[in-house]
Amino acid sequence: MYKVVLLRHGESEWNKLNLFTGWTDVDLSEKGIEEARQAGKVMKEEGYTFDIAFTSVLKRAIKTLYIAQEEMDLLWIPVIKSWRLNERHYGALQGLNKAETAEKYGDEQVKLWRRSYDVPPPALDENDPRYPGKDPRYKDLDKKDIPLTESLKSTVERFLPYWHETIAPTIKSGKKVIIAAHGNSLRALVKYLDNMSEEEIVNLNIPTGVPLVYELDEDLKPIKHYYLGDQEAIKAAINAVAKQTEKK
Amino acid sequence: MYKVVLLRHGESEWNKLNLFTGWTDVDLSEKGIEEARQAGKVMKEEGYTFDIAFTSVLKRAIKTLYIAQEEMDLLWIPVIKSWRLNERHYGALQGLNKAETAEKYGDEQVKLWRRSYDVPPPALDENDPRYPGKDPRYKDLDKKDIPLTESLKSTVERFLPYWHETIAPTIKSGKKVIIAAHGNSLRALVKYLDNMSEEEIVNLNIPTGVPLVYELDEDLKPIKHYYLGDQEAIKAAINAVAKQTEKK
Repeated sequence: MYKVVLLRHGESEWNKLNLFTGWTDVDLSEKGIEEARQAGKVMKEEGYTFDIAFTSVLKRAIKTLYIAQEEMDLLWIPVIKSWRLNERHYGALQGLNKAETAEKYGDEQVKLWRRSYDVPPPALDENDPRYPGKDPRYKDLDKKDIPLTESLKSTVERFLPYWHETIAPTIKSGKKVIIAAHGNSLRALVKYLDNMSEEEIVNLNIPTGVPLVYELDEDLKPIKHYYLGDQEAIKAAINAVAKQTEKK
Repeated sequence: MYKVVLLRHGESEWNKLNLFTGWTDVDLSEKGIEEARQAGKVMKEEGYTFDIAFTSVLKRAIKTLYIAQEEMDLLWIPVIKSWRLNERHYGALQGLNKAETAEKYGDEQVKLWRRSYDVPPPALDENDPRYPGKDPRYKDLDKKDIPLTESLKSTVERFLPYWHETIAPTIKSGKKVIIAAHGNSLRALVKYLDNMSEEEIVNLNIPTGVPLVYELDEDLKPIKHYYLGDQEAIKAAINAVAKQTEKK
């Protein structure tokens, strides 16, 4: 039997500002730093330890991981970063205010971009300063892999090869793994593990900064999953994410 | 022509307490954190950037690196950790007070352990709680590689294979490399690069938290080296390290 822990990064600066973030490399807020610290504390209290960590190339996930590692006195474990664990790319909406976007395009359209499985937001063009091909961290990517926008479906499609080729074999080798990533890259994993429908996954809300444990059998099929920490507070956090989405 | 940057970690908590540290995994002091931040700032101001970083498995080096990376907005680059970049192992002296040790063994003996090239301090035995074989971070090492004590010579001998097999090929591949490590693992590298005598290297003092740049030719032979930052302050820091050693 294997265990893998999924950790969604804490609140970011742009969360607070109500901006579409995606691949924009924004920092954690003070609250986000505190969430990361709490995540590390609860994992330590529950006796968790790790041999290796995977994260994205975005600092809000990397810092969440580092802060949790420091709390667990595990700064020394290997950390592997991959763009395939990045948040869903939000296309031309990145950096725009969510309320203003709703005014411009209409509530229904924005809801569709945010909550449909396969409708991507408007694409960037390659001259846009937000185009990832201009960022040195993506310079070794094949051009066909550099997104101009992504639906949740495309996020699943670029995440899963990394799961199959890198993370899953690591877990099967007996190493204890933590994955510190983003709402939608973690959704991609959960959809795959739990074989969820498209409708189920868009309605699943993973709270920030709460370790989500999956127990897996020898074929990495889920036996059960659960959040670590105060269960009442976690329920409230899940509901808060759901409400935030309704409101905006 | 290649450039590689060497960064010795900032002041640690045990520096202040005047204890022998070695492989003990002590944290940075507040001053050490500030030194790391300054190192990151000066590298950024001087236009440095990196593709990959190497560090030890000890948190004072890892955190120095992370803090500098954060200042340079380079948290996303790969970081490779290896025990071969650890500080020199200080054997049975680890955790002892330097002044008390001098009283017990005599000034001359302590000076010999600290400033000779090939005389190691008294060895640990394997039942000692300080024996690295008890620490999960060293569980994949061959037993013959786990030190009971080290001279500077043995530090050089376990560091150089990592240089030749891993770091040097990375530099030659054209990647910009930073190495965040410790007084003696960096001495090991400098001795090799500059082909220093045993006497020269024991008298070389690398200040904490000051980026040391080596420009290397196509065979990785040094063309020149220099510290980044306020040159007067750096001279004072080098002298301070030298005096600290004399005094204790």
